Amino acid sequence: MADTEKYNQIKTEEIIDSLDKGQRYNFHNEFTDLHVYEQAEIFTTLDKEQRQRVYQYLTPKELSDTFDAIEDDPEEAVKYFDEMSLKYVAELLDNMYTDNEVDLLGQLDKHKLAKYLGLMDKDKANEIKALLHYEDKTAGAIMSTDFASIVSNQTVSSAMQVLREEAGNAETIYYDYVVNNDKRLLGIVTLRNLLMSDETALIGDIMTTPVMSVKADDDQEDVAKMIRDYNFLAMPVTNYDEQLIGVITVDDIIDVIDEESAEDYSGLAGVDTEEQTENPFKAASKRLPWLITLLFLGMSTASLVSHFEGLLSEASILAVFISLITGTAGNAGTQSLAVAVRRLAVKDDTEQSVVRLIISEVFTGLVIGVVTGIAVTLIVGIWKGNFVLGMVIGLAMMSAITVANLAGSFIPILMDKIGVDPAVASGPFISTLSDLTSVLIYFSIAQVFLKFFITS
Amino acid sequence: MADTEKYNQIKTEEIIDSLDKGQRYNFHNEFTDLHVYEQAEIFTTLDKEQRQRVYQYLTPKELSDTFDAIEDDPEEAVKYFDEMSLKYVAELLDNMYTDNEVDLLGQLDKHKLAKYLGLMDKDKANEIKALLHYEDKTAGAIMSTDFASIVSNQTVSSAMQVLREEAGNAETIYYDYVVNNDKRLLGIVTLRNLLMSDETALIGDIMTTPVMSVKADDDQEDVAKMIRDYNFLAMPVTNYDEQLIGVITVDDIIDVIDEESAEDYSGLAGVDTEEQTENPFKAASKRLPWLITLLFLGMSTASLVSHFEGLLSEASILAVFISLITGTAGNAGTQSLAVAVRRLAVKDDTEQSVVRLIISEVFTGLVIGVVTGIAVTLIVGIWKGNFVLGMVIGLAMMSAITVANLAGSFIPILMDKIGVDPAVASGPFISTLSDLTSVLIYFSIAQVFLKFFITS
Repeated sequence: MADTEKYNQIKTEEIIDSLDKGQRYNFHNEFTDLHVYEQAEIFTTLDKEQRQRVYQYLTPKELSDTFDAIEDDPEEAVKYFDEMSLKYVAELLDNMYTDNEVDLLGQLDKHKLAKYLGLMDKDKANEIKALLHYEDKTAGAIMSTDFASIVSNQTVSSAMQVLREEAGNAETIYYDYVVNNDKRLLGIVTLRNLLMSDETALIGDIMTTPVMSVKADDDQEDVAKMIRDYNFLAMPVTNYDEQLIGVITVDDIIDVIDEESAEDYSGLAGVDTEEQTENPFKAASKRLPWLITLLFLGMSTASLVSHFEGLLSEASILAVFISLITGTAGNAGTQSLAVAVRRLAVKDDTEQSVVRLIISEVFTGLVIGVVTGIAVTLIVGIWKGNFVLGMVIGLAMMSAITVANLAGSFIPILMDKIGVDPAVASGPFISTLSDLTSVLIYFSIAQVFLKFFITS
Repeated sequence: MADTEKYNQIKTEEIIDSLDKGQRYNFHNEFTDLHVYEQAEIFTTLDKEQRQRVYQYLTPKELSDTFDAIEDDPEEAVKYFDEMSLKYVAELLDNMYTDNEVDLLGQLDKHKLAKYLGLMDKDKANEIKALLHYEDKTAGAIMSTDFASIVSNQTVSSAMQVLREEAGNAETIYYDYVVNNDKRLLGIVTLRNLLMSDETALIGDIMTTPVMSVKADDDQEDVAKMIRDYNFLAMPVTNYDEQLIGVITVDDIIDVIDEESAEDYSGLAGVDTEEQTENPFKAASKRLPWLITLLFLGMSTASLVSHFEGLLSEASILAVFISLITGTAGNAGTQSLAVAVRRLAVKDDTEQSVVRLIISEVFTGLVIGVVTGIAVTLIVGIWKGNFVLGMVIGLAMMSAITVANLAGSFIPILMDKIGVDPAVASGPFISTLSDLTSVLIYFSIAQVFLKFFITS
């Protein structure tokens, strides 16, 4: 792999060199020979002057392939439009796959959008407008309308002819959907099926039916789950009249899976880990809202401790173990939270199984609490030569962990029930909340046993 | 989707009903009509008696499709082998895709493995042995050897004929790899290319070259990254003689992406979130090692606070803010950690950019620290009517957050450098470690300013 990387780097340098030297022919050949992903990687590192040359050396159709691959960051991609002529942009957009085209157009302000739509033919413009309408993160928002469809009373060889003609434009020709005259989805034939069938066979006789499909307003995560479970290469999207209106391909689903798992990960840490800015002010401004919110929760804990100041001044030893108890309970609660959130993401839970999950987490907390509680009792007892104190700490730890596990499992489930994404209940939130309950438990227990462990 | 679910449930009930009633013909037709994923879902819910009927009603070849789909849990899947005759198992295995077959065989003890290998023909057995040899999580461990290959001096129509013949066995015929007489990988032709080309064209003239490939011992995560970036449907695997030895398909890569992201998520929480047991003892035993380790780190913090008991008995008010400071710093450190781990996972970082990342995180911590520090100074100053105390808390919080961000970014980078997966540096670890530094910072600052804020 290191060899490939080095090879790629040398090639990249050569291509940029041709561009700088104005070797139009060389650049054109070398650049268009690359995989579109590599084209995008190179294009996004160019400076403005170099890009201006690219717009001269490549046709809009050629550059449209590159733009199909700058899918990760549509916000950045549309900035290049300002450097191109209106006609160049219009033609470039026209040659992109509709799903990527819509991603880019969705980034523009109304004024610019209207300008580009005005340059398209009316049918295309209406189609784009309809696609722009779908809510973010739905099947409609990620589907492509560039698909090949065949009809059931066609023969295999005539269907193959349709696919040959569509092969240049369709996102996939490996999964071919069968529709009737009303464009209603009837079945599916894979190209593999077609190859294995007799040329004179009728599509209607070899198609698989019923075919699984999704609705345009289905959640993209559900589509991802189906494609993953069934190992499909594509999934058809229908409207409420069961008409085929789009196709979602597996490469787009991989991006969805990546996006969703990055969200889960970010949620757990209480920070958008995809932010990736090196500007500390920008980074801080994104992280502060969550931290300030938790700071207020932390102030409640402080004010609770404040109520126990009398106890603390009598037994300052109690302060020694505050962070031990809050820390361990917070860690256990975070584990519970992560298990519960994943479970909610993976399974379709019933009321019953959700209750079982909470009970299981609370009992797990109890077992963990008993083990760590006994360990702490012994350690503190020996260290401070005071087993009553040890027992207070141990008992507090056991109770605090059990409560933290209850919170860690109950809160995401509650959020899921009321329709909030449970991934928002971050580790920091659970551990800050558990600080509050842990301190309350700790000092309440200490208060009860105060006269038994104070030796002075 | 709800409709589909209901429909599926009714169908499932009907199929199980046919099985229970011994309606061999009905069951056979209905079951084999299902998608293999659904077959697997149903099969794994059956009881032993029902399964025995399945072994009678389905041929090993038919059931092999079902077993291809029980890929998530090979450990469970091999348990069914004990219920089947030796010959049934051998034939079932023989009809599975090699990658799944190897997954199952890898679960068996040596004795059983030898028994099944003995029933295969010698070439196949040797191939399986070679595949079993690849280390977990490498390209070799997930590749399949069921691929179609074509040669460069073939015409398009003769290549199509090869694919027609292979279509029943190969994992994919949509990506076709071109090899020379020594089986060395020369190029790739997609089925789409074939369809769009003239029937008499030579493969050598239409193939894409050079073709990207991976080595059998490459990390599966690197393969996933390439397939994701390039939107490939498959990736060829070669040995060190550049001979084509296997193919990895996109559906297996989706499983890899899922597995790796679950690992990252689990790492951040310090718990294996895929465990999903409802037995509290089992769950506790998996979570305790990490918690006990952190408990000892927490005991160091307690022993540090213990050194400051004199200070605490003079100013018990200090105890009020321990959890506020440790909690906020821990939260900020967890954010830093998550950002750093993701950054390491996504980018190939240079020495320089890694240093920049740490500097950026420390400055972000400083900015966050100044903002929260000022907020806390004012809140505590007003609340307790003591602005010197407020300033001590604010200053401690600012320093503690900056240090937590340093630890949160530096530690995963250090781990990455020494070859440990940075995902192991969990949120709980960083927040427990940051408890220690926060407490040290807090009491040191308090000690210096003690005489200014003690009012009594």
